[in-house]
Amino acid sequence: MTMNFLEERIQRDGIVKEGNVLKVDSFLNHQMDVTLFRQMGEEWKRRFADVTITKILTIEASGIGIACVASEYFNVPVVFAKKSKSINIEGDMYIAQVESFTHKNINQVIVSKKFLSSDDHVLIIDDFLANGCALQGLISIVSQAGASVAGIGIAVEKGFQSGGQIIRNLGYRLESLAIVDGMDAATGQITFRDQN
Amino acid sequence: MTMNFLEERIQRDGIVKEGNVLKVDSFLNHQMDVTLFRQMGEEWKRRFADVTITKILTIEASGIGIACVASEYFNVPVVFAKKSKSINIEGDMYIAQVESFTHKNINQVIVSKKFLSSDDHVLIIDDFLANGCALQGLISIVSQAGASVAGIGIAVEKGFQSGGQIIRNLGYRLESLAIVDGMDAATGQITFRDQN
Repeated sequence: MTMNFLEERIQRDGIVKEGNVLKVDSFLNHQMDVTLFRQMGEEWKRRFADVTITKILTIEASGIGIACVASEYFNVPVVFAKKSKSINIEGDMYIAQVESFTHKNINQVIVSKKFLSSDDHVLIIDDFLANGCALQGLISIVSQAGASVAGIGIAVEKGFQSGGQIIRNLGYRLESLAIVDGMDAATGQITFRDQN
Repeated sequence: MTMNFLEERIQRDGIVKEGNVLKVDSFLNHQMDVTLFRQMGEEWKRRFADVTITKILTIEASGIGIACVASEYFNVPVVFAKKSKSINIEGDMYIAQVESFTHKNINQVIVSKKFLSSDDHVLIIDDFLANGCALQGLISIVSQAGASVAGIGIAVEKGFQSGGQIIRNLGYRLESLAIVDGMDAATGQITFRDQN
């Protein structure tokens, strides 16, 4: 198979750790390669070219940079969901419960009702999809707003966890730019799903 | 005085609340107007045109979008500091203690040592500057790395709090795009410092 730009980058700079941990913190979720983010935005725009999108929704923290740069290809505002109640947020809010696979805790995911309405066609963007709890929370919030999920753009999906399959089973249009089907911490080998 | 693009936007869409709270969540730190972020990036590029910058450093969550979009004018990677220890971060880290004015709590601010070195000339970018504790933590991290602070770009500075003055007293080059010198919750009036 031919690797796309993101799969090539993961193969080159991603680090596989024991316990199915894939570290991409040198370019995706700690240090951020914004030139790569532009390529990702361009690719999502190509894949969602036929879809009406009025707003992009993501979740703090590592989704925000990707969503903002990607939004330059869609020319719509970005809203990021917050993971805990802030004293700067007041008034009516959409709230969903999210359990983090990474941190093993439960967060409230919050979006102000001002920023999502029933007229919105929402593209959800995030950096990672594993068991999909964060994504399920974002879908719940779009649903609470009476808006529609126009599509879901994920950078890296862990294909050996159930999140992506559940979302596809539910009928959502999910475009993951790289789907990791397997990792070997001993050899550093990463196997990507062929999407061609 | 003539207002610049950001002051005009704050005047139009910012909401003044009791207790010197300025809500800019419709365009800056919850819903995000990426077109505005591009203007901010362009303006920082103009103000820091004579400065060598190799990396942009910001802090999660609301600094990330601004920093990523601004970085497109500087063509350097962005690193965001994390506010709590993540199990996905391991190995050597720079750590600073930060007390949040907004949340009244103390966070550890963390950056992996891999992503800042003594060769770096760092532009620090954040959305808000009030008492400056977050910013002091970021400066501490740059210092721990042996890197230099090339400049500091802030979107909205609360000029009636001490953070900005302390940073300027210390000799840092601080460019705040809007400095709020006063707010009146009763009338909604916002007074900006004349920077011309």
